[in-house]
Amino acid sequence: MTPHRQRTRRVRVGKLALGHGAPVVVQSMTTTSPRQVKATLAQIRKLANAGCELVRVAVPDEGAAQALSAVTAASSLPVVADIHFSAELAHLALAAGVAKVRINPGNLGAEKALEVGRDARDRGVAVRIGVNSGSVPEARRRGAKTPGALGKVMAELALEYAQGFEKIGHKALVLSVKSSDVLASLAAYRYLAQHTLWPLHLGITEAGSVLTGAVKSAAGLSPLLLEGIGDTLRVSLTGDPVQEIPVANQLLAVTGVRRRGVEVIACPTCGRTQGDLTAMLARVERELAFEMRPLTVAVMGCVVNGPGEARHADFGLAGAPDGRFLLFAKGKPLRKVAADKAVDALLAEIKK
Amino acid sequence: MTPHRQRTRRVRVGKLALGHGAPVVVQSMTTTSPRQVKATLAQIRKLANAGCELVRVAVPDEGAAQALSAVTAASSLPVVADIHFSAELAHLALAAGVAKVRINPGNLGAEKALEVGRDARDRGVAVRIGVNSGSVPEARRRGAKTPGALGKVMAELALEYAQGFEKIGHKALVLSVKSSDVLASLAAYRYLAQHTLWPLHLGITEAGSVLTGAVKSAAGLSPLLLEGIGDTLRVSLTGDPVQEIPVANQLLAVTGVRRRGVEVIACPTCGRTQGDLTAMLARVERELAFEMRPLTVAVMGCVVNGPGEARHADFGLAGAPDGRFLLFAKGKPLRKVAADKAVDALLAEIKK
Repeated sequence: MTPHRQRTRRVRVGKLALGHGAPVVVQSMTTTSPRQVKATLAQIRKLANAGCELVRVAVPDEGAAQALSAVTAASSLPVVADIHFSAELAHLALAAGVAKVRINPGNLGAEKALEVGRDARDRGVAVRIGVNSGSVPEARRRGAKTPGALGKVMAELALEYAQGFEKIGHKALVLSVKSSDVLASLAAYRYLAQHTLWPLHLGITEAGSVLTGAVKSAAGLSPLLLEGIGDTLRVSLTGDPVQEIPVANQLLAVTGVRRRGVEVIACPTCGRTQGDLTAMLARVERELAFEMRPLTVAVMGCVVNGPGEARHADFGLAGAPDGRFLLFAKGKPLRKVAADKAVDALLAEIKK
Repeated sequence: MTPHRQRTRRVRVGKLALGHGAPVVVQSMTTTSPRQVKATLAQIRKLANAGCELVRVAVPDEGAAQALSAVTAASSLPVVADIHFSAELAHLALAAGVAKVRINPGNLGAEKALEVGRDARDRGVAVRIGVNSGSVPEARRRGAKTPGALGKVMAELALEYAQGFEKIGHKALVLSVKSSDVLASLAAYRYLAQHTLWPLHLGITEAGSVLTGAVKSAAGLSPLLLEGIGDTLRVSLTGDPVQEIPVANQLLAVTGVRRRGVEVIACPTCGRTQGDLTAMLARVERELAFEMRPLTVAVMGCVVNGPGEARHADFGLAGAPDGRFLLFAKGKPLRKVAADKAVDALLAEIKK
């Protein structure tokens, strides 16, 4: 099931390994400031419980940077400091024990960015060089008339910055080239994959609220994952970041990159559907949202594709013409169950 | 913006054209039986208002087939009859004036399927040959050990069925090879695109409820759309089918295939965010859900990527350090607005 991954270098981020065949790491970002130490740690715990493996924290000011050591000391996940505009904040974050610093040399200034690089190098801490389409200098952007051309400009910028870090002997880089434009992102990441061995952090920026953001992220990241590109990813959604994790897990699972969690197969309801399938499905998805075993569970309303799909799932229900549901497990029909008991029977079978 | 489309034949479906450079058609399926004529027509109207262009109706029994002519006569959208198991129902649907029949010869029987083909040919009505992974005969499925191999088997089946229809002189075919497995679907559609000129109907079956189904559909269909494959698509979601349309529109828009509706660019909220961006964004998306002009609207919380992204959108808001929002239009900053008036100002500017 695992497609060929593009070869990258191995980079350590705290207890995690990125790249060179390591599982693609799921990450997210808190919506709290690290000044709110307790709230930040509570959000990190929620993210970790949902399956998040690496967490980024914005460090917008000195107060946030000062509070960061209390977060890094107690966080169960490696912490990445997200820094903009101020090299001083990056140095404070490094001193606070973060596992990675994310900077955009475009808004730090090239020299100050390299100073951060030297500090991180001496501490053995990874740096993500994150170029965003919104921060490409106008002079570079002007020639880029198509999303593809803009993507190439972003990738070239990231590679220039990375070269600077290589020259000072920094050996733990991660690169990202996020855009809110799917076509620009695809062009940027494909170009990077051809021109660097550093691990790549995938993401679409400013993707939108839960549904539209998830669709845009899936549309932009699926082609890359299928091509073996990407060593870590974040699905950026506006709202509670915990919602990002099942979307990221699902994306990894359906592209065959990494099986995490339950894949629910459900038919669209139609004129043939038995029972209130929408409610049944919602309950199955809710109850299994944090099940991390890689299982396929089918919830099918009728006999057209129902038994076929259910039979090839690990567990399944398929509506029978008499209004009851056939319960399947490991490819075998077990028994018929009344519609109002069908989900209970399915969940009991899965939890056995 | 429009990527190269794979060349297909032109097929007419009622007033619509599919294939050969025609815009990729967005379709859905009612959850009502056509026996409920009023409810079915009401759902078709809702779908049409949301941007649906072609609607499929399940025809599970003779009563449904008899009621179908009342639906086709009053429907504002061309109607596709979805037929399983019974050739007789297909003939009744054709007599009821549908614009296309969707059959799976695998469950009709090859001879009876061709009888339907002759009837449709004589009436000048298009036929979709829809192979589903769940209905691949076990004997054919047995050798297919990987999703890719299963996809190829599905495509080969569809091509065999299509050859039968070509032999009897049917000249208006559409092919689909849906699976609930993204990798199998990709392999199946790519194989078809290489081996047939008939237009392709894209979809992932049994994708799931709104969020998980949209993510799976986006992950599976985006690579195909980006490769120029697909002449019509359905995003299958369990629940109200109206929800399928904005997802389909968004997928077409972000892959550059067809700009329909508003693309909202929004930052994930973080420690730097000004104001209640999640609520602001939700309102912008809600108010513009049925705006069909192809616009890009940015809603950004802060200054890191905010002004840059907002400037490149048709309309935008970006949080300023003083707690107000900068309103942009056509790349130019217009004025600063208080946070609680910012969405109103943005919507007024768009509606001007």
